[in-house]
Order: sequence, then C-alpha cells, then structure tokens
Amino acid sequence: MTRRLEEGATRTRPKLPGRQDWSSWPNYDAAAEGFRGYWYPVTWSSHVTGKPKAFTICGEKLTLIRDNGTAYALHDRCPHRGVPLSLGSQQFPGTVSCPYHGWTFDLTNGKLCAVITDGPDSPIRGKVGVPTYAVAERLGMVWVYVPLAGEAAPPIDEQLPEELVGNAFVMGGRIDPRAGNWRFACENGFDEGHAKYLHRTSLWRLFKPMPVWNITRVVPEGRWIYRVQDEVHWEADFPGVGHWTGKRWWKLRPPKGTFNVGNTGTPKKVDPVIEKQGFPGFASLSMPGVLRIVYPKFIHYEFYVPVDADNHRYVGVMVNFLKGVATARFYAKYLGAIRWLFHGQFSGQDAWMVDVTDAPPEKLYRPDVSLTSWRNLAESTTKQKLAALKGEPS
Amino acid sequence: MTRRLEEGATRTRPKLPGRQDWSSWPNYDAAAEGFRGYWYPVTWSSHVTGKPKAFTICGEKLTLIRDNGTAYALHDRCPHRGVPLSLGSQQFPGTVSCPYHGWTFDLTNGKLCAVITDGPDSPIRGKVGVPTYAVAERLGMVWVYVPLAGEAAPPIDEQLPEELVGNAFVMGGRIDPRAGNWRFACENGFDEGHAKYLHRTSLWRLFKPMPVWNITRVVPEGRWIYRVQDEVHWEADFPGVGHWTGKRWWKLRPPKGTFNVGNTGTPKKVDPVIEKQGFPGFASLSMPGVLRIVYPKFIHYEFYVPVDADNHRYVGVMVNFLKGVATARFYAKYLGAIRWLFHGQFSGQDAWMVDVTDAPPEKLYRPDVSLTSWRNLAESTTKQKLAALKGEPS
Amino acid sequence: MTRRLEEGATRTRPKLPGRQDWSSWPNYDAAAEGFRGYWYPVTWSSHVTGKPKAFTICGEKLTLIRDNGTAYALHDRCPHRGVPLSLGSQQFPGTVSCPYHGWTFDLTNGKLCAVITDGPDSPIRGKVGVPTYAVAERLGMVWVYVPLAGEAAPPIDEQLPEELVGNAFVMGGRIDPRAGNWRFACENGFDEGHAKYLHRTSLWRLFKPMPVWNITRVVPEGRWIYRVQDEVHWEADFPGVGHWTGKRWWKLRPPKGTFNVGNTGTPKKVDPVIEKQGFPGFASLSMPGVLRIVYPKFIHYEFYVPVDADNHRYVGVMVNFLKGVATARFYAKYLGAIRWLFHGQFSGQDAWMVDVTDAPPEKLYRPDVSLTSWRNLAESTTKQKLAALKGEPS
Repeated sequence: MTRRLEEGATRTRPKLPGRQDWSSWPNYDAAAEGFRGYWYPVTWSSHVTGKPKAFTICGEKLTLIRDNGTAYALHDRCPHRGVPLSLGSQQFPGTVSCPYHGWTFDLTNGKLCAVITDGPDSPIRGKVGVPTYAVAERLGMVWVYVPLAGEAAPPIDEQLPEELVGNAFVMGGRIDPRAGNWRFACENGFDEGHAKYLHRTSLWRLFKPMPVWNITRVVPEGRWIYRVQDEVHWEADFPGVGHWTGKRWWKLRPPKGTFNVGNTGTPKKVDPVIEKQGFPGFASLSMPGVLRIVYPKFIHYEFYVPVDADNHRYVGVMVNFLKGVATARFYAKYLGAIRWLFHGQFSGQDAWMVDVTDAPPEKLYRPDVSLTSWRNLAESTTKQKLAALKGEPS
Repeated sequence: MTRRLEEGATRTRPKLPGRQDWSSWPNYDAAAEGFRGYWYPVTWSSHVTGKPKAFTICGEKLTLIRDNGTAYALHDRCPHRGVPLSLGSQQFPGTVSCPYHGWTFDLTNGKLCAVITDGPDSPIRGKVGVPTYAVAERLGMVWVYVPLAGEAAPPIDEQLPEELVGNAFVMGGRIDPRAGNWRFACENGFDEGHAKYLHRTSLWRLFKPMPVWNITRVVPEGRWIYRVQDEVHWEADFPGVGHWTGKRWWKLRPPKGTFNVGNTGTPKKVDPVIEKQGFPGFASLSMPGVLRIVYPKFIHYEFYVPVDADNHRYVGVMVNFLKGVATARFYAKYLGAIRWLFHGQFSGQDAWMVDVTDAPPEKLYRPDVSLTSWRNLAESTTKQKLAALKGEPS
Repeated sequence: MTRRLEEGATRTRPKLPGRQDWSSWPNYDAAAEGFRGYWYPVTWSSHVTGKPKAFTICGEKLTLIRDNGTAYALHDRCPHRGVPLSLGSQQFPGTVSCPYHGWTFDLTNGKLCAVITDGPDSPIRGKVGVPTYAVAERLGMVWVYVPLAGEAAPPIDEQLPEELVGNAFVMGGRIDPRAGNWRFACENGFDEGHAKYLHRTSLWRLFKPMPVWNITRVVPEGRWIYRVQDEVHWEADFPGVGHWTGKRWWKLRPPKGTFNVGNTGTPKKVDPVIEKQGFPGFASLSMPGVLRIVYPKFIHYEFYVPVDADNHRYVGVMVNFLKGVATARFYAKYLGAIRWLFHGQFSGQDAWMVDVTDAPPEKLYRPDVSLTSWRNLAESTTKQKLAALKGEPS
C-alpha cells in the first residue's frame, strides 16, 4: 500500500515554535545512549550471584556474575556464535561457560580459558576473549565503568558525590526500569519548573505547601551545578485567567525567606555532615546524570542510568548520615513512608512525564535555565574529556 | 544476521497482474492519511467533556475538550517539551493546562495565556500557542475541520449531505475504530461488486435475495457520484464451473426491474423528504469519503475518517426523517435490529475485508467502474482545490 | 527525539573477533529466506482439507486446499485486491473462491475460471490467474516445490533420503513453528560440537554417557556430507580450569572405539535396510537442509523449512523400517518416549539456542568443520544449479 503524503498540497502540519534541534549541544545531542567514560550503578549487589544475569547499559549488553564474593562484568556475547553468556552458567571456579558449546571464559580478563567440547588441546584456547568491565560495589549496588575509548577506569570515589566517600550512612532506595530517554529523566530531575505544578497532588507534599513560581539562578561549584532561589512566590494572580496558590488550610505555613537547603519549612537543625559540606543550593546535578536533593537531615540522590535510546533505569537513594541505634529510626521512616510516598507516587509522576516528553522541538521558558545549564555542563565536560583523550590542551 | 536475498538467482516471485501503482491518481495515491481541507466527524458529542481527550485525524493529533457547553479542538502537543495536552486538565475557565509545568492555553485561540510555574510576569506569556481547529456539532457528533493550507473553515453545512441540513430527523449510529487504510474502507463502501458475494451470509439479508451480478453505470450529479443499475441478474450459469443463485425458498422474491432507490423489493411508499431529493441511485458517494445508501424510508450513511495510514474510524449512521411519536418506532427498530444486524454483523464483514485488502498491485474488473469513478472524483476535486489555493484558474 | 551517537568520540563498542560476514559463501549468505528450487514439507496431510489454509514457505505465501482427495497449492493472494485466498472457500468442485468478490480459480492451473459477481460473460474470465505450485504427499505430509526460476518440479523422490523411497517403514514426527533463521537451525542440527555440552542435561541422554570432545572429519558421499569421528574422548582435564567428564555412575559405560553408526553403545544388530545403505557416518546432511541421524534400528530426520528470515519450521521424523505387528512396538515406543524426550525436551534445547544465535560475526572453532562443510556444500550446489539454469557448463 502506498503511504506518500498529499502531493502538490501545501501541508499545514502545525508549525512548532522554538528550538528545532539540539545542535547547539552536539555531544549532548549525540548522547542518546548515554555518556561513556563514567561509572554507572547497574543493580543491587544482592542480585549479582553465581548465576549470570543480563543487563544493558549505554546500549551495551553486559552479564554480571559473582565468583568467590567478587562481582564481574563481561560483554554478554560469546564470540563463537553470538549466544548471550548470561544464558550460561559457572562450570569451573573463576569462569563462566556459554550454554551452547561450553566455551569457558576467565572472569578476571575475559579470556577463553577452556573449550569443553574441543578438548584440552583446543587450538583456539587463549586466542579470543570477551571484553570485561571494571566493577565496583558502593551503596549496596554493583557499578560498572563504561569506557569511552578503551581507557582504564578511574577510581569510582572520584565520581561519587563527595559526602558519600568517607562518611558512615544508612540508606534506602529503589531501582526501577523506566520508559523514555535518560536525558528526559535527568532534565526532569533538575527541572526548576515542574515540581510546583506536577507534584501538587502528590501525597508526599500533602501537608507542605508548594511555591507557585520562583526566580532561580544556577550556580556552578566544582563539578556540580546548583539551583539557587532568588525569589519564592506562594500565590499569584494571572491577569484575565485566575488565581493560583500553593497554600491550603490543611498545609503547614510556607517558610519565610528563600533559603535553599531544606527549603520546606523553618530551618531545622542541620545534620553535621550535611552542614560541613556547605551546599549552596537545595538541588544540584553532576555528570553523568546524578541529582542531589539536600534536606536538613538527609540527602536524596537520583542516578539516571542510560539503558538504550528509549529506556533508562531510575536509581533513587535516600541517605541518612546516622550510626548506631539511630539507624533503626531511619529504616522505619524509609520503609513506612519515604519508599511509598517519595520514591513511589511522587517519583511516579515524574516517570509519567519522562515517558511522554517528546523534544526537540521545544520552546524553553525562564525556569529552564536549569536545563540549559545542565546541557552546557554536559557539553563542556565532554568536550574537555574528548580533547584530553586526543592529547589536546583542554 | 544477514537478510539479503539469493544473489545471482532469477527469483520467481509470482508476477502480479494489472495495475502496479496508483500513479494515474497522484493526489489519491498521496492521500494515505486522508484528504485535508474537509470536516471530519471525530467522536460523539457526549464524549467531549471538561476532561481533555486525545484523537488522531489525518495523522494529526488533536485534543478535544468542552468548556461552558462549547467543544474546542487543539493540537495535542504542548510546545514546551512535547507533552500531550490531552493528559492535562482544566484549571481555569476557558483554558487547558499542560500536566507537566502548567502551561495554560486559551481554548478559543490556542494562545499561551498563563504559565503557572513562571508567574504572572512570565515573558513567554502570549508569545507562543498551539494550533486550534474549527469545531462544529452535527448528528450528535463533534466535527473538526482539518485545513489544507491554513485556510479558514468553510461552513460545515456545505459539506454535509444536503438532506441532513434543514430537515428534522432521528438517527442511530456507531463509531468504530478499524484497521486498514481509509481508502480501502471507502472503496469497499461504494464497491458495486462485493456485497452480492461477501454479504450473502449476513443475517441482514436473511430474507432478502441478493443479485448475482449487475451491469452498472456511475452517474455524477453535483458533488456526488451514483451507482445506477442497467441490468440485475438473480441467477447465473458459469460454464464449466456451476450454477449460482441469490434466491432461496425462504427469501422474498426478487423485485422486478432495475430500480435503484430502495432496490430491495416492490417499490414501497417513499418517505417524502427522500422522494423530494430525487436521488438517481441507491448508492452515492462524495468527498472526502461519505457514502449514502438510500432506502425507501430511511438513509444509511458511512463516513470513513482517516486516522493514519493504517487505521480509520468507521462512522455508520441510520437516519429517519420522522418527528413526534413516530420516532419511538425508529429507535425500537434501530436498537432491536439495525444496530446489530446492519451496523454490526453486515458491516463487520466489510471491516474484515478492508483489513486484509492489499493493493496496489490490483487487477480491476468490470464492476470496479465504481472504484475508478470515485478515484477520478477524488483526483479532480483535489486538483481543483489545489489550483484554487494557488489562485490558478480551475 | 534525536538518536545519533556521540560525535567526536572514539566509541569502544567491544571488537568482535573472527569472521565478520558470510561473504565467502555469497549464495548461502543471500539465502536468508531459504534456497529455492527444492521440495519442502509444509504440514501434515491430514491438515489439508476442503477449507483453504495459509502457509509461508521461503517468504512466499501459499494456500493449501484439498479437492476430491488431491492437495493443491496456490499463491495466497487474489490478484484483484490482494485478499488472501486462504480466507475464501470452495464454492464449486475443483475451484477456490476469494471471499471478497467471488473470484473463482481453477485449482489445477490457477486460472480465473469464473467471476461470480460479474456474470458468465465477465470479460476478465480466463485472462488472469494465480501461480500454482507442484504438490506431493510423502511421509504423511504435503510437500510443495518452490521454483527457482519458473522451472518444472523435478520428481520429489530424487530429493528424499534414498532409503525412504521404495522401503516400507513406520514413523512418528512433529512439525513445530520455531523462531530464528532456518540456517541457524540447520547448522545446529549438523553441528559437531554442541550436543555434548548443551544436551548433557537432557532426559533423552539420562542413562547414556556423552563424549567430552571428538576429533571429527566431514566426508562427502553423493549429495550427502557425513560426520566421521576419528577420536572420541569421554573425559578431559583442562589445565588450570578443571576436570570434565561425560560419565556418571548411573549411566551406561561408554562404548569402545569410534564407530559412527549408532554410536551410543556396544554395536547392536543393525536393521537390514539401514545396514544395506552402508552409511559412512552417524550424522549426515543434504540440501536444502535435511539432517539424518542413523541409529542401529531407526533413523531420525530433521527438515529445516524456511518460513521467512526470522522463522522456520522444525520437522522432526523418526523412521523405523518395520512391517506388520512389529510396527505396534514402534508406535508404543514413539508415543511413550521418543516424542517427549527426543522430539520434545532434547530438541527444545536446540530450539532455544537457534533462537538466540546471532551470527555473523562469529569465531569458528575446530568442530565447526561440520558447519563450514555444510556451507560449502550449499554454496557449490547452488552455483551449479544457477549455472545449469543459465545453460553454462557446470
């Protein structure tokens, strides 16, 4: 059946205003499958066992397997006939065997160390292998380094949020597969504008008022960018349209001022670890898509992990810098409320929007300074990385 | 895995006889997503409420919403980040708001009249908008005008079948989403040949004989084309193959002659409104795909509404020009029989064929004068429209 | 949404070792939809009845119908509007009619012999037709010849395994639709390497040991190639990795020597029909994908029938050259065990691997001499066929 559109006719497809493409951020535009050259959390440590499992990160198929307590990551494709090694099993210590012909690979270096069905003198033994990936375990998760150009993995602690290195903490979290490109998820997370409207109906904010609109600056500091509020407005009259308010009789009264850390009410006593960091803003973001929301007593992180161009993994983690018996209180609060209200329904509203976002074309507005700042950060960081790889001065 | 076909080999894919493409009707060929520049019925009026809903017409995504009794149609895409407005809601009278950031659009002109999360002084306010569509309500349905080149919508009454304007009537109908291109549905509807064979098993024709074959002319009159029967044959002997008849002992006797209006038996008293129109044929068709089947006492219409290249909406309507208590008899007849036998099983046989039709290539036969006449009508009408738009003499 | 990959970056997609394509076997490479110019089994004879049914072979849509005891195959597309004839029915002896307009085709030659809805004098009658296919019935199945270049079908007995022509036998079998290209299925069937590892857990081999590895030659004889074992190893020590054995205390002791026919234990008395054939090897293969596994008392065949590039039909047949009351014993054994253990679970492990094989790229190993021999056979046979068709000296 023919599908051509009406010839000779001036088609009136609605004209789309604004930016038609992302060509002003070419590296960001090209990163549909994620930025390579970073550590990414893949799954919970407890899910990585002696039985290999399949994952996709940055469009690349991996298999994770645990041997003698250590987690390993290999490219998930037997070089023989392309069968996924994740369908195989462990037949010898320190190895994984393809289910089809028993090609057996060394977990530490990916080398073909035995070919069961070709005998000990198999000429191919040691001659081929599968790529391996650097693996680390942090925050109860297995992290994998996806190299940009074959380079060795830098220490993962250089990439983790600074306060998570060297401090004791307790945490709770969720890892959810989600539809939509990882960039829409990341932009949603740092987006200044949406929370006040989209999340107005979330139970998480049931007793806390939401501002109507803010005047926001984005402030870079180190490898992070911070949203800083210059003005916070709790009510507004839109001429010819109507009145809007974030206040309700059953909600707490809005806080005074425009403070940025834990801006949900009167400043409480801030956790010493958090206070020490001196975060200049409530919400901050760093490469390759790590969001940090700082409350007075705890910090919420979101890692937007690229799966492929149409899917990502949402990793939400709530961290409390507690030790000893106080940790029990955190777990009770996490399991009793945060997990369902915040990591569940609140975050589910974001998942819904990320799934239906369809840009470019796009027409940005004033609060989207948060988006363009993030894209600028991603773009300049990547340009530097690529220049460094080529030995050019950055 | 490679997929190339056998090299060097002379492949014997079966040769397909007849017309290989529709290049002799270039505008019709190009109208896979429908002809623009027409009014189309979208849904029942009662389905358009204060909660926006999503529809696709001619490949274009629309949202329909009702405000203060009036139905409005907007392009279903917020220009900000591409989120469908049909996922949003009405926050202020006369507006619809995007669910993501509360961009709020005036229903009458599509203009961005307030941006909730950017405050009353938002610089973007009034600067962008979404396209709107002319809307009308007729026959209990919401109709939308899909413009060809930005032109204003002509009065819908100029496009409706003439007898439906200015006459009182009662009606019953169905709107069904159906698989297959709208052109196959339209060609099926006006197709002279298929009914006698395909519908031979329909309950709707259980007691009425079907002809075996006819000699048919197509007669244009105004913007309609009519099928006119010159010969009607109720039995046939196919040499070397066998005998075929539309008659059965339990069916009524076939009518005499080749009359065309209400050709289902002895001429009954014809409804005065129908008689006044003086239709020259039983079945007629007009742009952009409106079928009219005239029975002595009522008229059946089918509107084939393009959704996209692979889907259409079937709108079947049975109309009776009655007033007062007589209308109760119509409703009883419609709900008791017509809806299930005609708009249901009979029309379902057509839906089945429309779904599996796959042309071109195609090899037309004598009764397909109905198809080629329709394509000629579509082609010449469109050429005139395009010429008029360009200011050329038509 | 943009999908381009990272610009400027040297992507480190894992490098795949070995053969990157099948360009050394160009005809085999091109035969994703199967080799034309062969007979293929389509379905059980009992499934072909007076009601036409649809099948796809070598990417070509067929309808099979039985009339007066004889099976016929026609191209499954009415030339009028492309409706499948398999949706139609038989209205007159020796014909099939399209469901849409009653175009009626002669089963013996595909000619349009009557057009019900255009009367006996329809000018198109006899002017068009649908291609027909040569049909034969063997082994309880309907076979169709898919021509390469319009040539007449050669006798099917020239293509059947020789011992199946002229000998009495009983049989049991399964026809299963399976995912994956037919070439992966065929390569899997003749593959020397996989059975010893993949099938180590099959119930079919529960009491029979499997070798660990063999040294194998492939020997051509006539149109067949045979796998011949030069060495069979039942245990192996893989240096630095571990020990592997096919022996278990509950299994029979491995046979001595490297005999090839019925290599599952001490040589039993061989069936006289099988003995007479003097097969030089246990497993043999011929075009267009016919596997033969010779046991002392029975022979197992697999026919890998191309459906399209992504699907094939597995036809597994177990044959016993018995007559008279002895056949009852075979049926009991087939229905009680072979059907579930061998044609079911054992063969299901192959189906699993065929579905996930993804090559080229591929890195072949020593036992893959069986694969390359098969590809060479397919390639040279096809070159000869094509040359013969062009009248060139082969």
